[in-house]
Amino acid sequence: MTAPLHDRDSGTSAARPHDRHSGTSGARLPDTQQGMRRRNLSRVMHTVAAHGPLSRAAVASRIGLTRAAVSTLVDELIRSELLDELGPERPGRVGRPGSALAVSARGPVGVGAEVGVDHLAVCAVDLRGETRARVIQQVGNRGRPPEPVLRELAALVRRVCAEARSAGLSPAGLAVAVPGLVARDTHSVVRAPNLGWHDIDLGPHLPPELPLTVDNEANFGALAELWLGEGTPEDFLHVSAEIGIGAALVIDGRLLRGTHGFAGEFGHMPVWPEGPSCPCGGRGCLEQYAGEKAVLRAAGLEAGEDRVALLAERAAAGDKAVRRALGGAGTALGIALTGAVNLLDPRAVVLGGALSRLAPWLLPSLERELAGRTGGRACGVTVSGLGSDGPLLGAAHSVARAVLDDPAGVGAAG
Amino acid sequence: MTAPLHDRDSGTSAARPHDRHSGTSGARLPDTQQGMRRRNLSRVMHTVAAHGPLSRAAVASRIGLTRAAVSTLVDELIRSELLDELGPERPGRVGRPGSALAVSARGPVGVGAEVGVDHLAVCAVDLRGETRARVIQQVGNRGRPPEPVLRELAALVRRVCAEARSAGLSPAGLAVAVPGLVARDTHSVVRAPNLGWHDIDLGPHLPPELPLTVDNEANFGALAELWLGEGTPEDFLHVSAEIGIGAALVIDGRLLRGTHGFAGEFGHMPVWPEGPSCPCGGRGCLEQYAGEKAVLRAAGLEAGEDRVALLAERAAAGDKAVRRALGGAGTALGIALTGAVNLLDPRAVVLGGALSRLAPWLLPSLERELAGRTGGRACGVTVSGLGSDGPLLGAAHSVARAVLDDPAGVGAAG
Repeated sequence: MTAPLHDRDSGTSAARPHDRHSGTSGARLPDTQQGMRRRNLSRVMHTVAAHGPLSRAAVASRIGLTRAAVSTLVDELIRSELLDELGPERPGRVGRPGSALAVSARGPVGVGAEVGVDHLAVCAVDLRGETRARVIQQVGNRGRPPEPVLRELAALVRRVCAEARSAGLSPAGLAVAVPGLVARDTHSVVRAPNLGWHDIDLGPHLPPELPLTVDNEANFGALAELWLGEGTPEDFLHVSAEIGIGAALVIDGRLLRGTHGFAGEFGHMPVWPEGPSCPCGGRGCLEQYAGEKAVLRAAGLEAGEDRVALLAERAAAGDKAVRRALGGAGTALGIALTGAVNLLDPRAVVLGGALSRLAPWLLPSLERELAGRTGGRACGVTVSGLGSDGPLLGAAHSVARAVLDDPAGVGAAG
Repeated sequence: MTAPLHDRDSGTSAARPHDRHSGTSGARLPDTQQGMRRRNLSRVMHTVAAHGPLSRAAVASRIGLTRAAVSTLVDELIRSELLDELGPERPGRVGRPGSALAVSARGPVGVGAEVGVDHLAVCAVDLRGETRARVIQQVGNRGRPPEPVLRELAALVRRVCAEARSAGLSPAGLAVAVPGLVARDTHSVVRAPNLGWHDIDLGPHLPPELPLTVDNEANFGALAELWLGEGTPEDFLHVSAEIGIGAALVIDGRLLRGTHGFAGEFGHMPVWPEGPSCPCGGRGCLEQYAGEKAVLRAAGLEAGEDRVALLAERAAAGDKAVRRALGGAGTALGIALTGAVNLLDPRAVVLGGALSRLAPWLLPSLERELAGRTGGRACGVTVSGLGSDGPLLGAAHSVARAVLDDPAGVGAAG
């Protein structure tokens, strides 16, 4: 069995899963033999996870270390039950047959959870990136006090952990995606307007034995896109919507979190500065034109459950009012994206969440506006294939990847 | 004498001076003994540069290595003429007196150059951050072909280098700040509308013996603010103006460059989307309200030389039209900054260049707009103390800091 990776009360370790996606988490450690060993353990894990099964010699050649050095690292990772030796490679090759290495199918799993406005979800992902357990519960959380919501979430987390343990897996930590602002390096939801939550510390409500991370759903959605998206570049702006509109900027494979953890408040870019008042304090914010409420109003529809599906259905059926409403939202998105692209020069813009389901009717006006206003400076707009699964998967993978980033944490504690 | 650090034709090394400001340039090298040695050499140099004179023991304690390890590194840096031993420390302390180390006053200098619309400037900065030579030439460059401009710049560079060499210094590289877009990791100005330049490779026009970097003036201005500004945080948005308006985002002490090197086109954030056409292809861009031309027009003044001084003078004298024009520019800046702050959550906004001279009349409306629209989410606006010197100093310091970031480059070549 492996032990938890990080202490819950370490702000740094809580922040780490989101900061990087490759084995460089030790770059700020004092540069000692010990720091070098930890980084090299991480390189071995990431290499086998991404390209395995691989022989020791193949790992050595990929990461530029000697085979002897790699063998020492591999032995340590096998002892920690993070790598498995699959037995001799296919015979008939020159030299002594190497034994292929693979990431263990037992060992640590990352547990991800999502508090949605309409649902709760929890899943467990192993170090190979496979989902090993998953539950979803439809429940209207808007306006409910946090305590019962988090009690239900904790019960789902315990159910998924029990299922994982019965398969020989060991939950390494819990990451929770919430639809609101989370103060950087804390477990506190500062503001989640669509839940009606203010200044809620999730820590006391969740299983204490699991190291905890809490973050905005848009951030986890962008990380899922980075790690799991087909051909996603390492530099992109991820724009997603459920009820509100959020964004996350990934640069060189790292998430830009902002000083307070509030970066990505894309829904509050001013679009028409004298436009309608917004609860944020501004006027004419993007959300006033492209948020779910604004689009439903423009389409003449009532608020209610799963309105995105209704909008998509009506638009597909040719409903003129719905198409006009989505076209208007696309124009507003295009103007706001012009500002973001001029400021940030991302390689691509990826539309996720509800925006991916409505993309066919948003994209024409969005792209017209963006291309016209940026003088054709290339920035493609693509649509995420993860749909609404992004935040949950991003949360679970962030914990699993933190193990790959610092496998020595497991070995030292085990 | 020391030798040049990097080959001119290495795209990576050309980009390096701007990417980081502390000794982590080796973080992507294979993690070998050699890579570790280079990073530790850099740590010693940065520590002595920032806190020296220091004894070997004090360096060891600051960077978390043993005194023996530090001594080996220090001996190598003394042999490369990057560090000096100042003789025994003050006596009367326990143990054998240590010898204080300081960054050498000879050795490498970084050469910075600036192509302005109204001037050319070149300076040399040593590893201690002191300016050792400097020339400025007033000359109207608007609409001049690049060749004669760059010929004059090259002559100024040679003059500064000769002066540096006669003081026992060795120019380690040249960084040139230009008022335009520079393609990332190249020496090519893609577009400099206020000079009238398109697709100009500066490389062939400048002294071939100096490794060259070329970048946008707003980027170098932001780096100068990071390295030299009083109390500047490691995360800030630097907004500056000369003729156009540019911005640069610094995150964790690193510049966000953008995929193509075009990040920071803040002047082309849409403010009023149906506003006047902009040469960029957009409508209602910030520059149409807060650029020099727009402000002069709104103030009823003609274009001409040093209009910023004229605007400041008239505003100080109470000229109502000028104050109204600057107030309007402040409002537009505040709306555009609202978008940037919502998207990026910087710790601070710093106004540089011409904006710093006009700040007293821009700030009231700018801050009112920003605070009103962001619901009081804290993001202070400060004014740079570097004024129009930022880009030139940022360029020169970027070369000097690249030596601190990889002192092994000097030792290996020397």
